[in-house]
Amino acid sequence: MTSIPNVNTEILTHAQQQIQQDLTMALDAFSMPEPLKSAVYHAVMLGGKRVRPALCYATANLKPNHPHYAAVRRAAVAVELIHCYSLAHDDLPCMDNDLLRRGQPTCHAAFGEDTALLAGDILQSMAFEVLGSRLFDTQHSVDSPIILKQMQILATSSSKMVCGQVLDIQAEGQHVDQQALENIHRNKTGALIQAAIMMAAVTIFDGTDPAIPQLRKFGQAIGLAFQVQDDILDVVSDTQTLGKTAGKDEQVDKSTYPALMGLEQAKAYAQQLHDQAFAALAYFADDAEQLSQISQFLLSRKS
Amino acid sequence: MTSIPNVNTEILTHAQQQIQQDLTMALDAFSMPEPLKSAVYHAVMLGGKRVRPALCYATANLKPNHPHYAAVRRAAVAVELIHCYSLAHDDLPCMDNDLLRRGQPTCHAAFGEDTALLAGDILQSMAFEVLGSRLFDTQHSVDSPIILKQMQILATSSSKMVCGQVLDIQAEGQHVDQQALENIHRNKTGALIQAAIMMAAVTIFDGTDPAIPQLRKFGQAIGLAFQVQDDILDVVSDTQTLGKTAGKDEQVDKSTYPALMGLEQAKAYAQQLHDQAFAALAYFADDAEQLSQISQFLLSRKS
Repeated sequence: MTSIPNVNTEILTHAQQQIQQDLTMALDAFSMPEPLKSAVYHAVMLGGKRVRPALCYATANLKPNHPHYAAVRRAAVAVELIHCYSLAHDDLPCMDNDLLRRGQPTCHAAFGEDTALLAGDILQSMAFEVLGSRLFDTQHSVDSPIILKQMQILATSSSKMVCGQVLDIQAEGQHVDQQALENIHRNKTGALIQAAIMMAAVTIFDGTDPAIPQLRKFGQAIGLAFQVQDDILDVVSDTQTLGKTAGKDEQVDKSTYPALMGLEQAKAYAQQLHDQAFAALAYFADDAEQLSQISQFLLSRKS
Repeated sequence: MTSIPNVNTEILTHAQQQIQQDLTMALDAFSMPEPLKSAVYHAVMLGGKRVRPALCYATANLKPNHPHYAAVRRAAVAVELIHCYSLAHDDLPCMDNDLLRRGQPTCHAAFGEDTALLAGDILQSMAFEVLGSRLFDTQHSVDSPIILKQMQILATSSSKMVCGQVLDIQAEGQHVDQQALENIHRNKTGALIQAAIMMAAVTIFDGTDPAIPQLRKFGQAIGLAFQVQDDILDVVSDTQTLGKTAGKDEQVDKSTYPALMGLEQAKAYAQQLHDQAFAALAYFADDAEQLSQISQFLLSRKS
């Protein structure tokens, strides 16, 4: 079992600064009428851990100073826009009906349901616009086949995310086994986290590079670990630390790992998934320092 | 003024059969859990005029038997999926709150708000999945730069559509002038109709071909004409013919062309836009027979 040393959060902080700046540049490049514009900025700029962009950058860092880094930056923006769209829609009254997100009013609480719905809708198409754009390009323009691969990965994972949502809703109040729960979470959360990693992977590695399947394994393990940890935090943390309503899962009788296997077993399972993730990273030896740091942060996080 | 001869609807009927078949093939290729799957099929397979796919096919027919026709078929499916997503979301209680669409229950009326929301969400990502897929490919695979252009056009027009929705909501109960109204409709309806044409255009013509700007002009004119005609039909038609609630625009004090300029002037304006569309088609002479037929159908339609 991998021990968790002091977690260095510098890489995450740096990624958060980078994505905040890039998201701002991306949003500023769009012309949108009010109140849509304010709702979109609200949904995107509230902060959050920015785990997906951080994983995207860290994956690209396996080959530092890669000439296609602009495409990695676009991928990080795009995956975060998809994540933000999903949150805006998840919080709607017909879904989780949540008024609090990251300690702030949710998008519909601040701007009304119609505008929050449309903000989510446009965030999805904006993600694909950004991927296909020349944003952040300097001298090197990126080959079309790479961008096309990025788009395929993003589109597929976005669809999976929606399927996961549906499976999750269907499972409320039901007893589901671990396999069914994994299927929910691999789709609902895991697919987009894996997409963040794979969009960077296909940008910096050839399609036949053995690094690709290793990163896919890493993405699968870390994506699921993230959700197990999320379920654990919903039980052990409080609303203030989480920035969203704690204990909500139990309240609405959600299928979670602690509910299924007990808290201690869930913690052990999270660790096991992290071990799988680290095992996949071993292929890259010291080059994977950034991915390793972020993985350690994810396991030790409190919110 | 162009006279409207007997409209030959054969081309439209053929396009409707083709898109129905291709949409079925596309949806069948996706694995979705219930009730999402049923809601998605409901939202997509109810029918409708399929104007966007028809324009897409007819544009491609400017160069019959083009080797990249598979990419045209994918574009037709993708644009129709985006259209269907927008309808599913438009009908939601927080938007138009409509229970009837094409003479059938709307998606949320049949499947509940949460499922209709998620059906719309996945339809959007599925559109991009289809564009990037190998669906309908036979021996010829299509060059990545073309598919990338298609994606950019689709993503941009999808974002514009959402902006148009917001402008439309903002204009309710307001007096807007013709310029503002055009801005609403060029975004809300025009952009996606133009996208259907341009996705086919970039597939069959080189980027520098003078056909491209002509088709852009045609798309702009026909896209706006479509909306003017829609506004007119909302006044002059009845619910049974329309398959959706007639007279709804006036009821919710929507900004429409008949409200702005009077019914007769609106009709004259629709004709004028069609004349512009036909003028752009003149460049293609007899090759544009299919596009011309569909334009004539759009002007003479009753629903």
